[in-house]
Amino acid sequence: MSQRELWERYKKYLCVCPSLGFSLDVSRMKFTEDFLEQMRWPMEAALDAMEALEQGALSNPDEKRRVGHYWLRAPETAPEAEIGRGIRDTLADVHWFAEELHAGRIAPQTAERFTHLLVIGIGGSALGPQLVADALGTSADAMRIFFFDNTDPDGMDRVLTQLGDKLPETLTLVISKSGGTKETRNGMLEAERAYQGRKLDFGAHAVAITGENSELDRYAKKNSWLRTFPMWDWIGGRTSVLSAVGLLPARLQGLDVDGLLSGAREMDRATRNRDVMKNPAAVMALMWHHASNGRGAKDMVLLPYKDRLQLFSKYLQQLVMESLGKELDKDGKVVNQGLAVYGNKGSTDQHAYVQQLREGVHNFFATFIEVLKDREGPSMKVEEDTTTGDYLVGFLLGTRRALYEKDRESMTLTVPDVSARSLGALIALYERAVGIYASLVNINAYHQPGVEAGKKAAGVVLEIQRKLLSHLRGQKGQAQTAEQLAAAVGAADEVETVFKVLEHLAANPDHGVTRAEAATPFEARFSVA
Amino acid sequence: MSQRELWERYKKYLCVCPSLGFSLDVSRMKFTEDFLEQMRWPMEAALDAMEALEQGALSNPDEKRRVGHYWLRAPETAPEAEIGRGIRDTLADVHWFAEELHAGRIAPQTAERFTHLLVIGIGGSALGPQLVADALGTSADAMRIFFFDNTDPDGMDRVLTQLGDKLPETLTLVISKSGGTKETRNGMLEAERAYQGRKLDFGAHAVAITGENSELDRYAKKNSWLRTFPMWDWIGGRTSVLSAVGLLPARLQGLDVDGLLSGAREMDRATRNRDVMKNPAAVMALMWHHASNGRGAKDMVLLPYKDRLQLFSKYLQQLVMESLGKELDKDGKVVNQGLAVYGNKGSTDQHAYVQQLREGVHNFFATFIEVLKDREGPSMKVEEDTTTGDYLVGFLLGTRRALYEKDRESMTLTVPDVSARSLGALIALYERAVGIYASLVNINAYHQPGVEAGKKAAGVVLEIQRKLLSHLRGQKGQAQTAEQLAAAVGAADEVETVFKVLEHLAANPDHGVTRAEAATPFEARFSVA
Repeated sequence: MSQRELWERYKKYLCVCPSLGFSLDVSRMKFTEDFLEQMRWPMEAALDAMEALEQGALSNPDEKRRVGHYWLRAPETAPEAEIGRGIRDTLADVHWFAEELHAGRIAPQTAERFTHLLVIGIGGSALGPQLVADALGTSADAMRIFFFDNTDPDGMDRVLTQLGDKLPETLTLVISKSGGTKETRNGMLEAERAYQGRKLDFGAHAVAITGENSELDRYAKKNSWLRTFPMWDWIGGRTSVLSAVGLLPARLQGLDVDGLLSGAREMDRATRNRDVMKNPAAVMALMWHHASNGRGAKDMVLLPYKDRLQLFSKYLQQLVMESLGKELDKDGKVVNQGLAVYGNKGSTDQHAYVQQLREGVHNFFATFIEVLKDREGPSMKVEEDTTTGDYLVGFLLGTRRALYEKDRESMTLTVPDVSARSLGALIALYERAVGIYASLVNINAYHQPGVEAGKKAAGVVLEIQRKLLSHLRGQKGQAQTAEQLAAAVGAADEVETVFKVLEHLAANPDHGVTRAEAATPFEARFSVA
Repeated sequence: MSQRELWERYKKYLCVCPSLGFSLDVSRMKFTEDFLEQMRWPMEAALDAMEALEQGALSNPDEKRRVGHYWLRAPETAPEAEIGRGIRDTLADVHWFAEELHAGRIAPQTAERFTHLLVIGIGGSALGPQLVADALGTSADAMRIFFFDNTDPDGMDRVLTQLGDKLPETLTLVISKSGGTKETRNGMLEAERAYQGRKLDFGAHAVAITGENSELDRYAKKNSWLRTFPMWDWIGGRTSVLSAVGLLPARLQGLDVDGLLSGAREMDRATRNRDVMKNPAAVMALMWHHASNGRGAKDMVLLPYKDRLQLFSKYLQQLVMESLGKELDKDGKVVNQGLAVYGNKGSTDQHAYVQQLREGVHNFFATFIEVLKDREGPSMKVEEDTTTGDYLVGFLLGTRRALYEKDRESMTLTVPDVSARSLGALIALYERAVGIYASLVNINAYHQPGVEAGKKAAGVVLEIQRKLLSHLRGQKGQAQTAEQLAAAVGAADEVETVFKVLEHLAANPDHGVTRAEAATPFEARFSVA
């Protein structure tokens, strides 16, 4: 297509939300009018399903749950007054709590004021707060934020070292919907111990965000934590960023949570449009379907040309892949759906892998995100009539063209800035695009049946470890091979697991396991002294 | 395959490097002995090619360059004494410079000592230093490190704000092999301006790493920078981390650069093994070939179970994708090769997208990285006989099993710790696996012909911008549409580019362009007052 034709196509399909200064350009996606026509009725059905969802249908049938993240920014649309009240009350509580805390009326045990924030969570309980903090944070923030988002002891040590002497001024926020997530529980216990190491009462520095009466909720109450904020049954982890999960840390940092909510609300409005080609979430879902053949045949590469949006692709990995990566469709048919997402930021990624995008395996479509505002204040010229920000846009447009020349498809989102409002809008856009796409391919976007298997298998591993330790302690000083130990603990089939567990135990001082080398690694002998 | 059979397969194929405490487990890759037999002669040829490369062959024929990153850790193997001398001298200079600087004998203009480090680079000139800093850095480091790795003005402002009052104690390291990378040049100019804003002489705080007589080299000399370190023709950006590019920042931070080099050297030794199944780089390349059908049919998902290795997948995106993502093979045949890489860290990613990996689109193979050492010092028990680190290993083994149950392939690398030596070994392993794999699929791994197109197209965009500004200033106060302006500057075909450029200009104060709304966005009128 010539540049002229592309301009006409650009004008024809550009999908704008003037109130947000937002646009979606799909001119470089090579869909046809026939495709749009084919998708007309499936899209009608998808928009119907979304309407029903917003009205409180059991849109997550396997878990018999409603799906309520859209209510968070428009509590008046909640299907029951009580839900709306809960949302409003929680938001008021978030504001109140942060104000009290910033003013020093809610204060730590030994210091005057809380100045640091340690968020302990994983998955949906970390990715949203991390995205918001990185996109909107400044050095003028009311509190500095840190994360435990894993069960890596060294990772926790590193964060605790960074906090250093500030621990007495640190508020710890433990986030888990189920209240039973092991990584989060582990992080909490390590944090508790760090406070205790300084003779501080953990509860006087801790807040929970969790479901009512969860393990975490009970623990928080039993230990007189400062407060618990609710996590509702009808909010999924990956769509929880505009609940207390994302709003509380953001508000504590001093970020504009009302802007986040208003941006999302405005995008919700724009993406309820039944005029499909004017509805950016619907258009985006159609483009995903077009590009991936409705079966994940291409990866989604995300290239935001802005440092502050670097974590957006990581956030979307969860939102998109956990929502769409499903074995069964709603009729129980094996479909192995999904859309792989990756990307960091432009123009940095041009120097990493645009080589492959332009020339290599043709297994992706790209999404560019353009941010119009360069920075606060004016820019110097790095060449005649050219700023660093002009270069950034130049590279975006240049790379888009270079991909197009080689028949690689892309779409471009434009936002005026990286403000709370724009970020809220982007989040809401993708939430709805995911929901619509899931309808188009007939899957449940709101459950995650595949994540239990790994947790269960991990439980088996840890059970084997406990049996091994108990056995080794019962035979002190006797060195045995993995084969022998596996048989001894009744896990003869699990020799490999036994071996892997022993290797790890012997590499660490905690359980007193030592390893004696042998001719091959598999014959090494393990014992407890 | 039963657990018992898997144990036998594990023992049969486990590829170990005892001196590094390293192993590669491919038992969960479903290759056959037939496959290994088929690949025998191509692998022989690949290992021959690697030998020739190490001996100084023109292994990057398009650019008529030798490929010398293996010499960096074994200068005695360089094909010419002068090259070896250059490597040794530079390493000695790196040590000397850092010692002088740490001792305050090389000091900034107004402060006593350099305490902060700003690295300006992009792609291979940033990813390596970022990986090393994140994997090995501690709060006890001799200098704190920051990066400009993009041409995003807001991103630079954010870093400068973080540096704040420490700018007078900040050494700026500008890294560009060609010396002409625009993002890096822009970052340098913005940094220079920041120093000047504090009445500081930039040159007294600046060091360059660049090719001899490059634009940057000349600029550094002209402005009396502290020093220039060499970047040789026979080192590619994506394999430069063990040249001055990675070693100088690491040494300035106080990290163990000799450990990095010795780990790489040791892995080089192990991966020269002609006994293929005992050579981890050869085995890994075979597995990539097996999993992706030798044509990138599956993505490489990297799951290091350790926070400190979180950037490794980003580093490998460049190393793997820029090396393997090629349109043409060595015979000029269109092959569109490549291997897409993504991943962050476990167990965090389990809560993001393992749902899709286990159940969704089957378009990947996984690489787990296991780290045996949990942390410095002992761990608390979070449950009976269980530490947070035990959980981390439990999740790795559990997830691996959950994927295997669903027929998803994976391999597992095990390293004793995240030390300089282990990191050097991992880097060297992937460098050689990439080179071997490229031979197997008959492509040049050492050039990047596809990255110029985007840069050229960006140049066209910026040229249009300059013409537009010049034209608008010549017609002050006259508001015109993008269509009119495109015609006026002789770029009628490029209306869309003109429009995009104008939208960006009008969103920023730097060029005085204003925008008057109209009925549709495309009819908006632009002018300079």
